[in-house]
Amino acid sequence: MRVRIAPEADDLLRQAVEDAGASVAQRAEDADALVWTGGPDGVRDELLPSIRWVQLSSAGVESWLRAGVIDGTRLWSSAAGAYAPQVAEHAVALLLACAHRLSEHARSGKWHRRPYRPLVGSRVAVVGGGGIGLKVRDLLEPMTGEVIMVTRDGRSRDGSEPSIALADMARYWNTVDHVVLAVPATPETAGLVDAGMLAALPAHACVVNVGRGSVVDTQALADALSSGRIAAAGLDVTDPEPLPEGHPLWGHPSVVITSHSANPPEALRVSLAAHVEENIRRYMAGEPLLGVVVPERGY
Amino acid sequence: MRVRIAPEADDLLRQAVEDAGASVAQRAEDADALVWTGGPDGVRDELLPSIRWVQLSSAGVESWLRAGVIDGTRLWSSAAGAYAPQVAEHAVALLLACAHRLSEHARSGKWHRRPYRPLVGSRVAVVGGGGIGLKVRDLLEPMTGEVIMVTRDGRSRDGSEPSIALADMARYWNTVDHVVLAVPATPETAGLVDAGMLAALPAHACVVNVGRGSVVDTQALADALSSGRIAAAGLDVTDPEPLPEGHPLWGHPSVVITSHSANPPEALRVSLAAHVEENIRRYMAGEPLLGVVVPERGY
Repeated sequence: MRVRIAPEADDLLRQAVEDAGASVAQRAEDADALVWTGGPDGVRDELLPSIRWVQLSSAGVESWLRAGVIDGTRLWSSAAGAYAPQVAEHAVALLLACAHRLSEHARSGKWHRRPYRPLVGSRVAVVGGGGIGLKVRDLLEPMTGEVIMVTRDGRSRDGSEPSIALADMARYWNTVDHVVLAVPATPETAGLVDAGMLAALPAHACVVNVGRGSVVDTQALADALSSGRIAAAGLDVTDPEPLPEGHPLWGHPSVVITSHSANPPEALRVSLAAHVEENIRRYMAGEPLLGVVVPERGY
Repeated sequence: MRVRIAPEADDLLRQAVEDAGASVAQRAEDADALVWTGGPDGVRDELLPSIRWVQLSSAGVESWLRAGVIDGTRLWSSAAGAYAPQVAEHAVALLLACAHRLSEHARSGKWHRRPYRPLVGSRVAVVGGGGIGLKVRDLLEPMTGEVIMVTRDGRSRDGSEPSIALADMARYWNTVDHVVLAVPATPETAGLVDAGMLAALPAHACVVNVGRGSVVDTQALADALSSGRIAAAGLDVTDPEPLPEGHPLWGHPSVVITSHSANPPEALRVSLAAHVEENIRRYMAGEPLLGVVVPERGY
């Protein structure tokens, strides 16, 4: 099997292709598959009929679907799941920072006790049963009392845990201490965190979002924070994004906002290479690929 | 068995005594054991000859040893280990906040990418093989590449992991990415983190201290941070404590300082009650107590 890497090949990806037992093709004409490291622009020139599979480097494919590039004449796979460990880690970092009031400590510049409830003994809802959500669960379980997975259909992808369906959560939000959002942007998840949901959470609740900004109604979140209906928020994604300077969320002392950086470039290349290697191995063995893109479902 | 609780009894402790199968004694004269919830002052009046065991509510006993209250005519046990889950959680919160640069994000008030290395794939040295260190290891292992336990004698208390003796670490500091300190204040640990040790760490290193302030040479740490020899620090304990206003560490953007609050009162009472219940059960069953104080070793 011959794999072209474009528009930018690095040694990690070349090594991954070879470690999987394939060879690197210099020209599209010589390739059976394409590992595409760029965005939707420019890929069309590479889509020769001989290319039977395209591996993308991003985990979310909204922009690809909007651009209409994903065709039905070959397989397309995203990097969904490849970055799960580092994104999950960032979600846990944000949740802990919120629960332990680290933002307030960091901003204050003086010794001052701030009461807080550790995650020990608390119940955290993790919304999203994909790779990130499952990894968040694995990281939080040794820390908390209980992690509840909330998924589209009440089932986790690995089948290991009883989950609650998103549609049924309305009556459970008041039973959880904190919420971690790790879902893609779909019509179902848009505005999932709205005024009603926030009102159901306890006053000590922290809301963490590492999915997509559109999952949270930003104004409702800002209102809930400023009125004390919830305690804190940790956001790696916002709506709009970037969040404009002067937005009230920037000024709230218990809010931590990072710049859509849960998957930092430093870790991305290593994780992508591992994902590419695994998918080439699967392709050559005739096994299902990780992260196959299904345009009808939106990811 | 009859247990007196003084100077302050709460329902959680009373329940713990009863759940362990003992009864609560209202007067010292009627008691076989004392659960003492205060500091060293005032306990002497309670130490009737009939009291064969005293359970303290603090995990560290330096002030008790200094006060010379701990006698050899009965058993004394501390709450060492009781608060390990929440203190370990706080250590992980500080380490993640440092590695993910959350302090800088929280202070900046605007959207700005800050490169960072997640813990995924990194190697963390946890100094201290007691309950806190072991729990930090358990929380970090699913997140990092590798956790190295550093203990007094190269053995962990639970015997589950190969550890490196503190005395041998000099040649290993340059092999770790981050350091978490969870050791008591003893002559051996005083100034353990000094200029030489800090110089051996990589420039991206984060140093977290949830043990005692004296373990770190504060001036050396401030120098290492200001000169960029290490990246960040997360401190729940400092020397001096409280850290005075205007100290350079307060102003360093990547330093997070909390106010010796890794064991917040909200969680303390629940954890102490569980510890007391377990120790009464052990005492009645003739099993070794948790946290027996041995004045010669200093804890």
